[in-house]
Amino acid sequence: MEPQSEAIKTDVLIIGAGPVGLFAAFEAGVIGLTCQIVDTLERIGGQCIELYPDKPIYDIPAIPSCTARELVDRLLEQILPFDVPIHLDQRVESVTQRDDHRWTVTTARGMTFDCAAIMIAAGNGAFVPQRLQLPEAAALEGSDIHYSVARAADFADKEIVVAGGGDSALDWALALKGIARKLTLVHRRNGFSATANSVATMKRAVDAGEMDFVVGMIESLDAPDGKLRGVRIKQVEGATDIAADKIVAMYGLVSELGPIAAWNLDVRGGRIEVDTSNYESSRPGIFAVGDIANYPNKQKLILSGFHEASLGLRKAYSYAYPEKKRVHVHSSYDTKLAERVIAAHAADSA
Amino acid sequence: MEPQSEAIKTDVLIIGAGPVGLFAAFEAGVIGLTCQIVDTLERIGGQCIELYPDKPIYDIPAIPSCTARELVDRLLEQILPFDVPIHLDQRVESVTQRDDHRWTVTTARGMTFDCAAIMIAAGNGAFVPQRLQLPEAAALEGSDIHYSVARAADFADKEIVVAGGGDSALDWALALKGIARKLTLVHRRNGFSATANSVATMKRAVDAGEMDFVVGMIESLDAPDGKLRGVRIKQVEGATDIAADKIVAMYGLVSELGPIAAWNLDVRGGRIEVDTSNYESSRPGIFAVGDIANYPNKQKLILSGFHEASLGLRKAYSYAYPEKKRVHVHSSYDTKLAERVIAAHAADSA
Repeated sequence: MEPQSEAIKTDVLIIGAGPVGLFAAFEAGVIGLTCQIVDTLERIGGQCIELYPDKPIYDIPAIPSCTARELVDRLLEQILPFDVPIHLDQRVESVTQRDDHRWTVTTARGMTFDCAAIMIAAGNGAFVPQRLQLPEAAALEGSDIHYSVARAADFADKEIVVAGGGDSALDWALALKGIARKLTLVHRRNGFSATANSVATMKRAVDAGEMDFVVGMIESLDAPDGKLRGVRIKQVEGATDIAADKIVAMYGLVSELGPIAAWNLDVRGGRIEVDTSNYESSRPGIFAVGDIANYPNKQKLILSGFHEASLGLRKAYSYAYPEKKRVHVHSSYDTKLAERVIAAHAADSA
Repeated sequence: MEPQSEAIKTDVLIIGAGPVGLFAAFEAGVIGLTCQIVDTLERIGGQCIELYPDKPIYDIPAIPSCTARELVDRLLEQILPFDVPIHLDQRVESVTQRDDHRWTVTTARGMTFDCAAIMIAAGNGAFVPQRLQLPEAAALEGSDIHYSVARAADFADKEIVVAGGGDSALDWALALKGIARKLTLVHRRNGFSATANSVATMKRAVDAGEMDFVVGMIESLDAPDGKLRGVRIKQVEGATDIAADKIVAMYGLVSELGPIAAWNLDVRGGRIEVDTSNYESSRPGIFAVGDIANYPNKQKLILSGFHEASLGLRKAYSYAYPEKKRVHVHSSYDTKLAERVIAAHAADSA
């Protein structure tokens, strides 16, 4: 089957709009490759914007301190000269190598790309909530078992079990106790990974009878007719049954490779094995850089992703332009780059 | 022989105070290693400060444009929290591994270091002027043949040959023609690598009879009694003899490894071969990072040096503290680092 006529043709498709994916787009431009970026998330910046947008980062070279937000803004400014298209809310689904060795890549929402190389800069993969590990839980997800709270009103006058011991669990327990008929916090131990202030507030609420706290783990669910009626909590000795018609499970996020796991790459421990001279995966033409890549002595440093992308793109160049030899020009002497940077910033401030 | 009692003990000795050496000192501090920096040059910043202090650099990640001077200033700010001693004008001469596997390193001016690992971040090595490639030249260096002009007065009323076609050659020809008895610029071709303005000024001076210009190469020297009397210039056809008692050769700088060449490292093409998982040289405990390192697909990018140093230091840690296991902490969650950064900047702005 021919690729769709509307396939977007580009030299390199970069998967991931985090700091490493953004810098990869800059380096692609510098060495003369066209590129496009796709990301599953709805905004630019990747996991560092999702997880800690305002926490200071100290180990970006020559930037003594910046937030993730500032880092991403600086990188967006840096790629301005190259007008890189960024497609958000696009989860890459399938990857197929054609007879001419180029790749056809499709997204879940129907975009198609035709590219010479693929650079995966997907961080820790897709972040999804850690789910309740019970066979009967799946059928109740979205109705009575929740991993996020979209509308607090849905929880009014309910018997709620909030599970977890981090800030999210405590914050939601405290937020929902006022509207719940009854609210029980369930955590496997008496210690919490939440801020001291939240823990103290929660303990005062328990002492005041505004909510309950039970140490234990959810062992099974009572849902005879597809409606949650209660949970059984396994404790150090024995078990306790609690009536419940809503569970809010806040066990934190876990990362998963998502569809990438089906691309026949050499993957170990959820990360893609690469060659340290060009950061190419076990499938020639597919590169992995940043936190998703693995090799001996790999460090999850943003600066490592910058290096990995830079070297990977030199190899990608040979796939896009097999007949040309690329000549290294120091950026200070790259007059075309200088003109582009100056023009981009003149346009940006106009 | 025991090392001198005044040997400075440190975990890692970093050779080179350029951007990569400076960032290596930051990373060493972050992971809990002490370090000291030595550099042959008299100022901090390495070759990028020597060669292009004010030219913009565009490819430092998240810094759309900065000069070498700004880059070095930012890195010096970044290492403030760690109080790193930097020893300038110190050329490392000898390196000896002791029975306890630590290293004794001495400099030409008599400093001695006792360290667990050595990180060479020496850029393109030591820069030295390209010399006249004539066997009879060596004996006249410093008396009649000069590669720099220390005191213009030494050239007063002399018959001077200035050799070269770059800015330095033209600048010195124009500067010395007023005090010389006779001045001849010798360059192998009619084109120059100097600024258009300097070339035009020089041509006007030649037209006005203030100096001569000869196309050709210095083929031999006439110095019968150890005093320069004249030079023979080889031309496209035949040769020309010019009376001369001073040669100012301005052929530009070349890099050389210097004493490092004698350290028994695997060196190819003037660069040190390293393993791409830890940037260690062929001698365990000696690392090479930045432009001086070589491996398949090596790119001379400053950002690559940052990555190489970061990974090398993790391996260096195992030499300094073989019994400890280092735990990776993301810089955003490294509270000790945050405290140091805040304290250093409070002190700096006080």
